[in-house]
Amino acid sequence: MTTLDTGVKIVRNVGRFTFGDGAVAGVADLVASKRSGKSQNAVFLIDEYFKGQKDIAGSLGAKSADAVHFISTVDEPTTQSIDELVAKLHSSGHSSPATIVGFGGGITLDTAKAVSNLLTNGGHAADYQGWDLVRVPGVHKIGVPTISGTGAEATRTCVMTNRETGLKLGMNSDFTVFDHVVLDPSLTSTVPRNQYFYTGMDAYIHCIEALAGSYRNAIGDAYSRETVNLCRNVFLSTDMMASERRSDLMVASYLGGCAIATSYVGVVHPFSAALSVVFGLHHCVANCVVLNATGEFYPEAHAEFRKMIELQKIALPQGVCANLTDELRAALIAATIKHEKPLTNALGTNFRATLTDTRIISLFEKM
Amino acid sequence: MTTLDTGVKIVRNVGRFTFGDGAVAGVADLVASKRSGKSQNAVFLIDEYFKGQKDIAGSLGAKSADAVHFISTVDEPTTQSIDELVAKLHSSGHSSPATIVGFGGGITLDTAKAVSNLLTNGGHAADYQGWDLVRVPGVHKIGVPTISGTGAEATRTCVMTNRETGLKLGMNSDFTVFDHVVLDPSLTSTVPRNQYFYTGMDAYIHCIEALAGSYRNAIGDAYSRETVNLCRNVFLSTDMMASERRSDLMVASYLGGCAIATSYVGVVHPFSAALSVVFGLHHCVANCVVLNATGEFYPEAHAEFRKMIELQKIALPQGVCANLTDELRAALIAATIKHEKPLTNALGTNFRATLTDTRIISLFEKM
Repeated sequence: MTTLDTGVKIVRNVGRFTFGDGAVAGVADLVASKRSGKSQNAVFLIDEYFKGQKDIAGSLGAKSADAVHFISTVDEPTTQSIDELVAKLHSSGHSSPATIVGFGGGITLDTAKAVSNLLTNGGHAADYQGWDLVRVPGVHKIGVPTISGTGAEATRTCVMTNRETGLKLGMNSDFTVFDHVVLDPSLTSTVPRNQYFYTGMDAYIHCIEALAGSYRNAIGDAYSRETVNLCRNVFLSTDMMASERRSDLMVASYLGGCAIATSYVGVVHPFSAALSVVFGLHHCVANCVVLNATGEFYPEAHAEFRKMIELQKIALPQGVCANLTDELRAALIAATIKHEKPLTNALGTNFRATLTDTRIISLFEKM
Repeated sequence: MTTLDTGVKIVRNVGRFTFGDGAVAGVADLVASKRSGKSQNAVFLIDEYFKGQKDIAGSLGAKSADAVHFISTVDEPTTQSIDELVAKLHSSGHSSPATIVGFGGGITLDTAKAVSNLLTNGGHAADYQGWDLVRVPGVHKIGVPTISGTGAEATRTCVMTNRETGLKLGMNSDFTVFDHVVLDPSLTSTVPRNQYFYTGMDAYIHCIEALAGSYRNAIGDAYSRETVNLCRNVFLSTDMMASERRSDLMVASYLGGCAIATSYVGVVHPFSAALSVVFGLHHCVANCVVLNATGEFYPEAHAEFRKMIELQKIALPQGVCANLTDELRAALIAATIKHEKPLTNALGTNFRATLTDTRIISLFEKM
């Protein structure tokens, strides 16, 4: 296959990052250093998973005048959920905070990025879904991932679904990138094993898709290769959640996020997006369900994935596409083939010649 | 060997980078976008290698009111050479340029970084040799490497020798990091083969030293591993200067620079520094001379290096340490063992027990 130009020519890096077990202890000082005469208060957006943890906001440096919101992870972010949160911040007097801390998984980190952009740019979340529509820098923002794999800490997007239009698209902008990221592997020690696996595989799957594609460049390939190496370290080891393996996976997540910025996915992500849209499956578990059924496109990665899932004794949802109706079949096909860029990346511009309706449905029926 | 904490906990990334063959064509627009009412002029520091190239400064966007200086690469930067250049810029009315473009190898890039810091911080270059002594951000700066390997485009230092004190030390500071880096592999097509090899091996050698050391962290290791992979791609291929191999080496240089920020070197660099100090050998060729003679510390890397150098038909300086006097021997030993951190990284805190004077000299005599 010929190598095609990705079209990506410019990359915005995360400003700074702090790393290592215990790095989270530095967040409070970081927040304090951003408070100034102009802006004394701060905003803390915390994954609801930590709601029961005693004084979690205080440990991150929150003071009484700050806004603390726990972010639900039942659904992935919507333009509506973002707009509602921004409205709450305006009405509580947090229109111009000194900094916003996002503490959690991809949903929470993406929410922090979107809120940061909206507080300075005004308008509604839907106004900025697309490429380079954000006009001015957002509020200073700090990202602290508490689970590894999606790479939201490193990317220039924050994915949101617009329920009115059905559009799932982020604010792709240099301004969406975090100013400071804190990579503390000790935070992932309590992640449930299945979730740890599904989320970590998000980095692996993106990168094996990118490396098998035809849109390529030397820097994206480098980030992808090392991300895959790190994921192998983790998921082919006997204890994927040992301290050093959690460090590896946190680095894989960050570098995988860097890879995303300069490359494209392949066959797995379009099918996975269809499972999310039609059945509401979360992104990471949907990716695993799809890779499990699409070995014909990625035979080596599929074999390795099977080895990993068996070694780590991970359960995958079964029969996700049992009892499909004609309506569901049509919805799944439409939601898959709309992802033209990744499908072209994997199969060429004429991808519909091989990826027929019948073949698409037979793949879904294996999931 | 136990893994020790590197002590490095925070990393400042290059703000943005542009990459790909032809990316250099975007430099002029980038410079134009930085000119403003407050500051209309720009500074161009260009490797003297390009002096004969017709309108090289104009192709980078230079206008008549701008300052254009060609940087000599006979010697590596000194605090004196930096101070003299800054004085020239002050007297020509370029005290507050809109941006500084560094176009060249490590010497030119490091010069651009140092000048940028001095124009806003005042004083002399020697005032800032050390860690975090730069007080305020420098002038906006754009780095365009024209040779790959040292990673100066990605690091937070700019190495300078203070001839009065004998101190070779950079301005290690977050403010030293480039705001924008342009990675255009087409620029390296005319590099002489020997120089291309020596400079590229700088990335390889740093990373194999880091990976063999005891001061380690997951992110430094990840950058180092992929840098070594890329160097293998390049130097174990039949045509190390093919277009795709030059892309690989430019990425290796950038990622190797990222690795430097979070890791330590080993035995090669202290010996190499001694060759530079005592005999004036440039850093990259000195590294190769040392690795060639120190296989006992890095047997696998040494074997691979020998394979690379033979495959690429590269000539190494011979008899560098022939005819040593007692005075030279003492100088070489002193200049080697002062690098305690890298030697500890490679051999442990008690490194002098194995690295005796006799052994040091017998190693130099093989060079």
